[in-house]
Amino acid sequence: MSGKLVIIGGAEDQERRCTILKAVLSLSGEANPRVVIIAAASTDPVEIGENYEQVFKDLGAESVRLLKVPGRDIPRDDSAAAWLQEAAVVFLTGGDQLRLTSILGGSRLFRLLKERFKQGIILAGTSAGASAMSDTMIIGGNAKEPPQRGLIQMSPGLGFLHGVLLDQHFAQRGRFGRLLAAVAFNPSLLGIGIDEDTAIVVRENRWLEVIGSFGITIIDGSSLLHSNVSETAPRETLTLSHFKLHILAQGARFDLQERAVALH
Amino acid sequence: MSGKLVIIGGAEDQERRCTILKAVLSLSGEANPRVVIIAAASTDPVEIGENYEQVFKDLGAESVRLLKVPGRDIPRDDSAAAWLQEAAVVFLTGGDQLRLTSILGGSRLFRLLKERFKQGIILAGTSAGASAMSDTMIIGGNAKEPPQRGLIQMSPGLGFLHGVLLDQHFAQRGRFGRLLAAVAFNPSLLGIGIDEDTAIVVRENRWLEVIGSFGITIIDGSSLLHSNVSETAPRETLTLSHFKLHILAQGARFDLQERAVALH
Repeated sequence: MSGKLVIIGGAEDQERRCTILKAVLSLSGEANPRVVIIAAASTDPVEIGENYEQVFKDLGAESVRLLKVPGRDIPRDDSAAAWLQEAAVVFLTGGDQLRLTSILGGSRLFRLLKERFKQGIILAGTSAGASAMSDTMIIGGNAKEPPQRGLIQMSPGLGFLHGVLLDQHFAQRGRFGRLLAAVAFNPSLLGIGIDEDTAIVVRENRWLEVIGSFGITIIDGSSLLHSNVSETAPRETLTLSHFKLHILAQGARFDLQERAVALH
Repeated sequence: MSGKLVIIGGAEDQERRCTILKAVLSLSGEANPRVVIIAAASTDPVEIGENYEQVFKDLGAESVRLLKVPGRDIPRDDSAAAWLQEAAVVFLTGGDQLRLTSILGGSRLFRLLKERFKQGIILAGTSAGASAMSDTMIIGGNAKEPPQRGLIQMSPGLGFLHGVLLDQHFAQRGRFGRLLAAVAFNPSLLGIGIDEDTAIVVRENRWLEVIGSFGITIIDGSSLLHSNVSETAPRETLTLSHFKLHILAQGARFDLQERAVALH
């Protein structure tokens, strides 16, 4: 048993229909769940966190706690642990995914979050908070360029979703090339690019469903018949033959284990 | 149940006492185990593989099969799968860890290797074959310099050992700074630097024992009280306060789960 993930491509609607943020709350199965916002990815946690605080309240959360994490020296006497124990929904804000992992990684707070996830909470993350969900995450790379090996930077993620590499603001920031290259680094992993105001809901590290305004791009490199990623110069365009590619929109389901669209 | 890992820091003795390579065979529990060498990390698999072929034969292996993997287009009619099914020991050679993952990742052969590991084989890897054992691996970085964020490159590994970042040729190539920086990227992970002609044997993703001529360096960042890794320029020296550090030599045991020396 483990919780459900809601992984959001950034820039989700917070003013009109709020499709994704509503889903974050309703997936908890509670009419008025308690929410904890962890703003560790942002250098401006007050601003980002306070915005979500109001939105989740307006959408019916019973309580919304904003957890600011200014640095690794998290006070031991704060009430963060108690909040997490009570929350049915935890939300990771955007910002810098490297800040998120370098500040939260290995902390008592993070271990508790892992425990709460195993107990079945909803864990949602947007933008940086989305990228960090996997075992290895992309922290930088070129945009609007063909796949090259040189500019991609990866780093260990928070490890809530296995076997994937996630990218966000995907179509909007032209990140197709960098995700293709990243998947070529190790085609055991499925690349998932998530557009803005779009999210994937993932259950049991296997069942994925798309919600929101745009789409997701799934890159499967297990079928690759040619790859020269380990032989090229950093800024040389790669030769990669025989990817499998899927574009999925609102309502589509995918089986991450079988790497195929799920029909049920 | 899963197999045992022997993760070697490179340049292991192949001529005199052969302590590590002997241990690789004897850990299988068989007097004369069958060995498969996977030379996917090397651009010169014949040379590297043939050397190990002879050494393992001299040390008593019943058979040694050298598996050359020139590219992703692995012939489906080869006998590699049958060899893997019979082997009690699989050995990953050195070379380039990015070649190893980009060529082997997502292939039928790799899925079979994962399956065989779950069934309890000995999986050994040296140098590049060592680095690739974890979920995220280091593929490049500066040497003999203080920790900086800029030059480290990481990428998704083969995922046989969780919760760690591995580095090899550790003392010999002055890689202390880069491993410190990599751990600071996400202190959930324990950094393990393995010296040349030295190895760790890991059972159940938890129990580690050191064998060989030199030592290992374990870097625990979970206690970090200050880290500026997400705020610095690429070539700026990091400020990282309150690491926990262990140096262990031949015979020492460590509990990866408790992050402490194991006394039993």
